[in-house]
Amino acid sequence: MALQFPAGLKRRSMAVATALEKEGFAVIISGDPCYGACDISLDLLGYADVLVHFGHTPLVRHEGVIYEPCPVDFDAGIVRNAIPLFSGTTIGLVTTVQHTHMLGECARALRSSGFDVVIRPGEGRTPEPGQVLGCSFSAARIPGATDILYIGTGLFHPLGVSLSSGTQVIALDPLSGEVNVVDADRFLRKRHAIMEKSRDAPVFGIIVSRKPGQNRYALAERLTSLGRTAFIVFMDEVTPAELLNLGFPAYVNTACPRLAYDDQIRFPVPVLTPFEFEILVGLRNWEEYRMDEI
Amino acid sequence: MALQFPAGLKRRSMAVATALEKEGFAVIISGDPCYGACDISLDLLGYADVLVHFGHTPLVRHEGVIYEPCPVDFDAGIVRNAIPLFSGTTIGLVTTVQHTHMLGECARALRSSGFDVVIRPGEGRTPEPGQVLGCSFSAARIPGATDILYIGTGLFHPLGVSLSSGTQVIALDPLSGEVNVVDADRFLRKRHAIMEKSRDAPVFGIIVSRKPGQNRYALAERLTSLGRTAFIVFMDEVTPAELLNLGFPAYVNTACPRLAYDDQIRFPVPVLTPFEFEILVGLRNWEEYRMDEI
Repeated sequence: MALQFPAGLKRRSMAVATALEKEGFAVIISGDPCYGACDISLDLLGYADVLVHFGHTPLVRHEGVIYEPCPVDFDAGIVRNAIPLFSGTTIGLVTTVQHTHMLGECARALRSSGFDVVIRPGEGRTPEPGQVLGCSFSAARIPGATDILYIGTGLFHPLGVSLSSGTQVIALDPLSGEVNVVDADRFLRKRHAIMEKSRDAPVFGIIVSRKPGQNRYALAERLTSLGRTAFIVFMDEVTPAELLNLGFPAYVNTACPRLAYDDQIRFPVPVLTPFEFEILVGLRNWEEYRMDEI
Repeated sequence: MALQFPAGLKRRSMAVATALEKEGFAVIISGDPCYGACDISLDLLGYADVLVHFGHTPLVRHEGVIYEPCPVDFDAGIVRNAIPLFSGTTIGLVTTVQHTHMLGECARALRSSGFDVVIRPGEGRTPEPGQVLGCSFSAARIPGATDILYIGTGLFHPLGVSLSSGTQVIALDPLSGEVNVVDADRFLRKRHAIMEKSRDAPVFGIIVSRKPGQNRYALAERLTSLGRTAFIVFMDEVTPAELLNLGFPAYVNTACPRLAYDDQIRFPVPVLTPFEFEILVGLRNWEEYRMDEI
């Protein structure tokens, strides 16, 4: 039996492996970086009958793979903290996978305070109702919503929710109770500056990942034919060191969308999203700007 | 056509790709870390008819793979710098792949100064006469040699040559002309200290790589059965961050042998070689200590 945990849960691997071994299982552990179900180590099925992937909903369906959720509870009443920031009365609810089981209770808490609440059903990469991923915000596109309440931590997901929904987004940290209105302007200004830095690059590296849920080779091939000199570069882990080693003056990332957004500060040169590259070559307008999703 | 360059040559990829594209080839580039032919990106053959792997001699033979050497010349007369340090008159010559084509000329220079020179024929992972790798020092085991002259840079290879040959080793930097007698004692003291630090670890992670030339799964399985609690951990890139994320108090590395030796200073906990682990569990004696080779 092979076990795979994402970064935040990896510490549990020793204890889970020890418990399973006591039950008579032979256990191996995936130690490679893992940030989503897109990272799934299918090749460990060459060494084990079953691969248990913890903490994510199914993305790549494959015989022998078990997806094991790791839900995290919180006090649902905390959603009332967001009420003073709502601009209207029709509220869309979204969250990440560890909290989707709480959305029903959160909806009840808001309804009892007089709000209409909409939770979009799951689909595709986000099978849970109201679920968003770093590469998929379809649950946030809720016609008629006056506000979207994002429940979770971090800055990236609420930004993505804001840019892909076009609706005011309130971000609520479900543990601390802190609430904020999401402001995407600063983010957009930064992306604009990064695009400008790459405008005169004589050659682009178009990054392609082989990870089962991140491979967008066809898209990468299309990007090489948009009139700028560009070569496809295969990288499973996109790191500052390897970008520097290769020495391209600019890259376009077709692997995990979050890489271009979250890690730009660590990268030595501009790393654009496919959409940004299309703006750069004149195929799209800046006004249409949207988040990269898979 | 897919191109793969090791770390030190990666910068050439843009120029080589541009030249090949002008000749009408569609070119893709491997951007993943590459330290040897063991790292070969065979899966790029899913996207290209031919994979050209630069800078290393063949290790994994496979249809569609071309190994393209990148020889580096130097002034062969520089080997005379080592003469004052020789303890005898029968000299074994070894070097790394980029310089093996120079060994004949180096041998002539030493012979003209009155020395007997021995260069072992190539075999297995080291097909060039006199060639050593970070994981294979068989060319350095030369019966009757009074000294081994290692031509190259860095500390690791001459250390490996010293420990696996048991003969006095002189290291010569072929570009600067600097010569040194290799002293393996400090290295051995360090390894001893690292082993001691892992002695009471309640559980070990046995690292296995999926890289074509580094996979020692059978060895790893054997190590889990030596009486200490141990789990196999698959990691293609062994990084301090991932070792820390997993949280094992000690590891045994069956991937690239150099990892345990060269990168220990960056690792948060002890990372032993398979041989060191066997010493720890009482299967071997410290006096038999030898370098890990594949």
